[in-house]
Amino acid sequence: MSATRECNTLTELGARFKATRRRTLALCEPLTPEDMMVQSCPEASPAKWHLAHTAWFFESFILREFLPGYRLYNKDFSWLFNSYYQSFAAFPEKRLRASFSRPGSDEILRYRQHVDQGIERLLDRLQNEEPSHEALQRIELGVNHEEQHQELLLTDILHAFFTNPLRPAYRPCASRMSDPERALCLPSGLEFETWERTDQEAAQPCSASSIGIIPTFRFHKFPGGLCEAGHSGPGFRFDNERSRHRVWLDPYQVATRLVTCAEFAAFMADGGYRRPELWLSPGWDAVQANGWRAPLYWTESSDAWSIFTLRGELPLASLENIPVSHVSYFEADAYARWAGRRLPTEFEWEAASQAQPVAGNLLDSGRLLPAPGTEVLQSQDPTESSESPNQFFGDCWEWTASAYLPYPGFKPLPGSLGEYNGKFMSGQMVLRGGSCITPAAHIRASYRNFFPPETRWQFSGIRLAS
Amino acid sequence: MSATRECNTLTELGARFKATRRRTLALCEPLTPEDMMVQSCPEASPAKWHLAHTAWFFESFILREFLPGYRLYNKDFSWLFNSYYQSFAAFPEKRLRASFSRPGSDEILRYRQHVDQGIERLLDRLQNEEPSHEALQRIELGVNHEEQHQELLLTDILHAFFTNPLRPAYRPCASRMSDPERALCLPSGLEFETWERTDQEAAQPCSASSIGIIPTFRFHKFPGGLCEAGHSGPGFRFDNERSRHRVWLDPYQVATRLVTCAEFAAFMADGGYRRPELWLSPGWDAVQANGWRAPLYWTESSDAWSIFTLRGELPLASLENIPVSHVSYFEADAYARWAGRRLPTEFEWEAASQAQPVAGNLLDSGRLLPAPGTEVLQSQDPTESSESPNQFFGDCWEWTASAYLPYPGFKPLPGSLGEYNGKFMSGQMVLRGGSCITPAAHIRASYRNFFPPETRWQFSGIRLAS
Amino acid sequence: MSATRECNTLTELGARFKATRRRTLALCEPLTPEDMMVQSCPEASPAKWHLAHTAWFFESFILREFLPGYRLYNKDFSWLFNSYYQSFAAFPEKRLRASFSRPGSDEILRYRQHVDQGIERLLDRLQNEEPSHEALQRIELGVNHEEQHQELLLTDILHAFFTNPLRPAYRPCASRMSDPERALCLPSGLEFETWERTDQEAAQPCSASSIGIIPTFRFHKFPGGLCEAGHSGPGFRFDNERSRHRVWLDPYQVATRLVTCAEFAAFMADGGYRRPELWLSPGWDAVQANGWRAPLYWTESSDAWSIFTLRGELPLASLENIPVSHVSYFEADAYARWAGRRLPTEFEWEAASQAQPVAGNLLDSGRLLPAPGTEVLQSQDPTESSESPNQFFGDCWEWTASAYLPYPGFKPLPGSLGEYNGKFMSGQMVLRGGSCITPAAHIRASYRNFFPPETRWQFSGIRLAS
Amino acid sequence: MSATRECNTLTELGARFKATRRRTLALCEPLTPEDMMVQSCPEASPAKWHLAHTAWFFESFILREFLPGYRLYNKDFSWLFNSYYQSFAAFPEKRLRASFSRPGSDEILRYRQHVDQGIERLLDRLQNEEPSHEALQRIELGVNHEEQHQELLLTDILHAFFTNPLRPAYRPCASRMSDPERALCLPSGLEFETWERTDQEAAQPCSASSIGIIPTFRFHKFPGGLCEAGHSGPGFRFDNERSRHRVWLDPYQVATRLVTCAEFAAFMADGGYRRPELWLSPGWDAVQANGWRAPLYWTESSDAWSIFTLRGELPLASLENIPVSHVSYFEADAYARWAGRRLPTEFEWEAASQAQPVAGNLLDSGRLLPAPGTEVLQSQDPTESSESPNQFFGDCWEWTASAYLPYPGFKPLPGSLGEYNGKFMSGQMVLRGGSCITPAAHIRASYRNFFPPETRWQFSGIRLAS
Repeated sequence: MSATRECNTLTELGARFKATRRRTLALCEPLTPEDMMVQSCPEASPAKWHLAHTAWFFESFILREFLPGYRLYNKDFSWLFNSYYQSFAAFPEKRLRASFSRPGSDEILRYRQHVDQGIERLLDRLQNEEPSHEALQRIELGVNHEEQHQELLLTDILHAFFTNPLRPAYRPCASRMSDPERALCLPSGLEFETWERTDQEAAQPCSASSIGIIPTFRFHKFPGGLCEAGHSGPGFRFDNERSRHRVWLDPYQVATRLVTCAEFAAFMADGGYRRPELWLSPGWDAVQANGWRAPLYWTESSDAWSIFTLRGELPLASLENIPVSHVSYFEADAYARWAGRRLPTEFEWEAASQAQPVAGNLLDSGRLLPAPGTEVLQSQDPTESSESPNQFFGDCWEWTASAYLPYPGFKPLPGSLGEYNGKFMSGQMVLRGGSCITPAAHIRASYRNFFPPETRWQFSGIRLAS
Repeated sequence: MSATRECNTLTELGARFKATRRRTLALCEPLTPEDMMVQSCPEASPAKWHLAHTAWFFESFILREFLPGYRLYNKDFSWLFNSYYQSFAAFPEKRLRASFSRPGSDEILRYRQHVDQGIERLLDRLQNEEPSHEALQRIELGVNHEEQHQELLLTDILHAFFTNPLRPAYRPCASRMSDPERALCLPSGLEFETWERTDQEAAQPCSASSIGIIPTFRFHKFPGGLCEAGHSGPGFRFDNERSRHRVWLDPYQVATRLVTCAEFAAFMADGGYRRPELWLSPGWDAVQANGWRAPLYWTESSDAWSIFTLRGELPLASLENIPVSHVSYFEADAYARWAGRRLPTEFEWEAASQAQPVAGNLLDSGRLLPAPGTEVLQSQDPTESSESPNQFFGDCWEWTASAYLPYPGFKPLPGSLGEYNGKFMSGQMVLRGGSCITPAAHIRASYRNFFPPETRWQFSGIRLAS
Repeated sequence: MSATRECNTLTELGARFKATRRRTLALCEPLTPEDMMVQSCPEASPAKWHLAHTAWFFESFILREFLPGYRLYNKDFSWLFNSYYQSFAAFPEKRLRASFSRPGSDEILRYRQHVDQGIERLLDRLQNEEPSHEALQRIELGVNHEEQHQELLLTDILHAFFTNPLRPAYRPCASRMSDPERALCLPSGLEFETWERTDQEAAQPCSASSIGIIPTFRFHKFPGGLCEAGHSGPGFRFDNERSRHRVWLDPYQVATRLVTCAEFAAFMADGGYRRPELWLSPGWDAVQANGWRAPLYWTESSDAWSIFTLRGELPLASLENIPVSHVSYFEADAYARWAGRRLPTEFEWEAASQAQPVAGNLLDSGRLLPAPGTEVLQSQDPTESSESPNQFFGDCWEWTASAYLPYPGFKPLPGSLGEYNGKFMSGQMVLRGGSCITPAAHIRASYRNFFPPETRWQFSGIRLAS
Repeated sequence: MSATRECNTLTELGARFKATRRRTLALCEPLTPEDMMVQSCPEASPAKWHLAHTAWFFESFILREFLPGYRLYNKDFSWLFNSYYQSFAAFPEKRLRASFSRPGSDEILRYRQHVDQGIERLLDRLQNEEPSHEALQRIELGVNHEEQHQELLLTDILHAFFTNPLRPAYRPCASRMSDPERALCLPSGLEFETWERTDQEAAQPCSASSIGIIPTFRFHKFPGGLCEAGHSGPGFRFDNERSRHRVWLDPYQVATRLVTCAEFAAFMADGGYRRPELWLSPGWDAVQANGWRAPLYWTESSDAWSIFTLRGELPLASLENIPVSHVSYFEADAYARWAGRRLPTEFEWEAASQAQPVAGNLLDSGRLLPAPGTEVLQSQDPTESSESPNQFFGDCWEWTASAYLPYPGFKPLPGSLGEYNGKFMSGQMVLRGGSCITPAAHIRASYRNFFPPETRWQFSGIRLAS
């Protein structure tokens, strides 16, 4: 990494650091200290832990090594907020994170301030005294690490609020938290706006008659051939995006948009969850074991479905045109088989997306929900199309047909940071493209996200290929 | 229940109600809202849930039925804070209680106030307009119910703080919470005092040489014969203490005090946890499955044991003379077998204790720890003694050899309250006598507590018999 | 045990030994070596293991100690066929018993012969040279031990055949195994006969209209008072039946017969398995966790129930009058609560049965099924009756309301045999009276059987009390 | 599949069918009916079930469809011996297979004969009357299916005998089963010979000093480039080997032989199982959860390791030069990381092996154990070598770094047979090359075996790449 796209000067890196740290706090604005304690499923962590762990990362991997005279905020925090870096320090079992009522959220905020001051001192020092390429890279890594936890913080809170029988909304539609006293005392100036449903969205509900009909999609053809995959050029990337390498692709087609809630409801209505022939064997086992009959957060009452979102509980009828999310790889794969298609490989996806601008419905839009694709809102012939596919970035992470494995020439980062990505390259599937809660600065065409195939608590959706 | 000992007038009942409700809040004084969220084992509940559930009990079983025009604080709370009353309303799974970040602890306090005002209005009404024996009995039941949850709140917090790797102390020795801002805003006037170790306690450490020697106990002889067990006379009692009935007891002996930490350490040093012949079969399975090698809250580092308590982590060396607590029935039984003795039955215990005053180291002492028995602090010949046994009340609940089963003529309370006790009469063992955190007004000779035999998170200890 | 009822001379003991050993083989006559391998639930053992373990018992606790010059058949068998005697030798995990294809069943038979010859030599020696009271007692214990395993062998085979989707019958009604070649080569002369349904049994089906009506029972009154329980006098007894001691019983009533299948079906038809208020809390948990909706071995197809038995699959319609069996303690308790009654304690049961002859539908009848009580087959007024209760012995083990705990003065046998009974005195309930597959010589009024309350694979039924 | 390599005439197919069916029986020759009942881990099935299921396959997918007038042997067998074909019929839970004592092994043999006669009639009919390409293909599939179960039968028996505390040997070294009476009555003429250790094998033990030293390997360089993978040309292949497609490979190196037991012991001696940094995260979890500290079947006593094999328990000292087997993917991956290398992808493996003859230590050698590679037995410089790698076929299945996923253009077989392979394409890793118990006719360069990464009960070993 000889130079970086976003942070080619120290000034830019400093600004990016500050903005990222501030946004983490802004995301917590609607949360009470009690909300920040909840850990409602094994995949999730309490919001407070995310606040602390991201500070821990800067302290452990940057300040301890690069800032002479840095004083640890609290020696115990070195192991208390370690997530999984075996070679760095012992760490508590993940399930215990909900027990960390002490330190309190106020102390965690002081910890973050302490670390912020340290990084600012270090940035000054790097500017004036002792430039260190490694230190800069680590700070940039820390920023990207924090952006990942911003997304996790929101998905974990969504699950926490869903588990609460009262189903509170993180940010209700067209409203703000009404009780400012209960919120953490945070800097004002939220970076994202309140979403209100537009006329356009409301105007095009899926007709009831569409349920039960196999939907039609338009597909864009790609020639394939000897392509390249993986990150190249300047700009930040994780170790798992390297090295850029050649892959051979046979000609393929990719759907021009994501599968919508209404289209997924048609799969359900056609017995999708009751037909083993549509499922991979461990997928069918998961359907049986977990009693799946709809995506996560869908609930049914008096024959009408509703979906629990960061905006609260909303009727499916008002969300039919938005991409379906919170489906597992198994559901995505079963849907594709039902539709007579398949999922794209991560290489097909990357080759298809490389010409597209990195833009879309990301965290910065403030919507906090997937948005209907342009095409869904227009009336068009559902035939094959030369039109470019869209929705590559934002809305939902897209499950690919590729297992998460090392690229040729993959080299983990040296030292403890080598545990960041490499040790998870088993049993997980790659997702691409970011979601409606991924920070815009965080995503790119070569970005590889990964989750076990039964995972549903992320904003994970479906794009078809063939 | 034609009349009651403690509450023979409405005025007394009102005073008892207020004092009990106030003490619950006082017990929460050292806790932050975040502390009150933690649920660290399946047996435990968050402190906040205890606050809400005890209000729910008064609202659901008293105000709804007996106070005309009572307005529910929040309709959802009717099921949200139901614990296990199947015939009253649905209820959330117990493990979800840690997800209830909303309602916040401030709202729970408002809920409690709302209920308190309701009960006060009802008491006025009962005084002036419409006496109802049933309403009075229910209020008294509600007070006793709340006292039970006071004890649970403390044991659950002890476990929560033990699970926190930083091991915070609920009330450190000879100190107060130093950061008043973080505490809930509560009425002042705590009813219990700060404990400081006395000279007497410190003066009599168990000598190191005592470890490894089977301890000696003095026993008091009881003639047995045709005795009576169960509650009689006026005064509150639970349905499970009735009806008073005759039991035949062969002559028996009961130790004059509880087993101490030092004596239990001798069992450990003699391989107690490694010798299957000392254990009941499911007890040995529990030792293997859980890796037990000491009572709960005992930890070893550099060959010295320490014990985590509500006063923080204390060295075993300073606690050797206090009764051992936080042992399961299986450990109590194995200890007794090792000592060549057995545990008393609940009937032997009740007959032996009937002549004793109901007094001891209970919650009202403010000690929050078991205390050494008088006898332990005196030098005496360890031979059989005509001296009365002591420590029957307070310090530790005493495991008995009796399964928790209905007495002859047992009649559960009518309606949903019938689920209070009766449905748990399977798979549990009876404990007697209360502990250092049982409210003094709550305990009596006929009181039957009960837990599954593998339970250790309560203050449960050992008295020998033969 | 200064003298014994059944075995007061060596000759009698020798005859009893031989008959018991022969009957074990006779019970295996319908089984192939492959049948004898099956272990279909954690409670069960393969039939072959029962054959071997009962030989092991005689070898380990008798021949090794009392027969000079005895040669072990195979040193490895000393631990291979140990069940749970921790102080005797290591033993394999119970779940591995289904892996013991070697030694084969033919070798197990040779092992039995070797042990038989040893015991016969020992009996000769005791007669002629060196009388040993302890040796005689141990042989008698071994015989009783083998009788217990005879019963287990049959209940384990019943479960094994139920698990086989083809549902083979152990001994079909009115028929013999048709393929003698596949059977073990056993001594001829079976001691039990083939059962054929009598006219009387067939003549009195429960009318369909009876389903849904709470049945009526007649009850016999007992005065109670200061009774005695436990074994006394000569004759064999297990250590858990001692010491005989006094118990006080309030006056009580006991039903004159067991609850029938038709009566239990009425409980089912009345929603018995769907009404939590009828169940103990852990019982309701078991209903939910296991999906119980009928006794074990009941299956429903096209709205008709059938019951799988040692005689094969039989329609409920033909079994309505026989006692219901294969219910757990929880189901027995829920039935009693539904019927407005309760289960008797073991002391009530023992006092009630003491006047009765030890006779009934036991293994020796060869029926292999519970039989209708006399009273059920006669038409009588269902009012309270001074008639003696019957069916105390045989048909079904009767769940009592008593937890399995030591009697006053209980002393386990010395040495490893002390593990026979005592270490299981936790978490189990007492059953009394034997079943249709208990050897007649094995049962007596003071006999205490015991199983965990969720157990259903034994012939366990219900007698009401109040 | 327009024509086939092995079976280009009906006569050849008939001969192959007969030989395969006969060999299945020959493999059972050392087994008693009781041995054939054992199912000792969830992955395994009883030998008897393998015998029945392979007959079921011919009956269900061939005789029912293609032989007019075919009479099912037993209607119940249609579902009883179905393994996992959801769209064909219901099937019993896998864990119940150990309960199928009935039908007995003699009846299973009759079932096989019935099916054999059916297939022979069908072959006649296809010759003389009505050629059917589909029928021929199905018979060939059935033969290949049976070959897969031959291998599983042996690995399942190895596990069964390992679970038996007596550790019987399937075929002891240089000996035959001594008790012919206990064996199934089978056609004589075993197709594999008794193995005796050769002088050469015994002559080159790994010196003790080699333990603890990181071993050295020679590697063969491959240029990579645009290669092809997947089956082409005539000859049988499974659907998962198609379609043949292009893949781009960067230049790579492959070790000239498999990792030996001694080399794996060096990894163990160097703390391999105690160093989390060597393991994938789920691999480290598996090490902890299962207590792995050596490959499956390795046991340690008095500081010497021995390995349980189909030849019985053998000292590691005598097996040091043979390839290590019964390691999971996680162990293979950790070993490679420790050795500073990696595992090859399945495409690298296939490209490297394409020039090699399909020959090696396979089932037909009768050895039943992996054999030392040629190179291991010669003294050579451990430098990079232009020598071709060997041991591609036989000895051990080789874990690759590739997840088991569909090839481009993958089309499952039509109908129920489509469940044969496709539905398992999730969560498993590809293995290549066959093992010492794979029938020689069964393996080829494009053959894709697959198991979950924690699987150890197969003959799975390690080849390094870089």
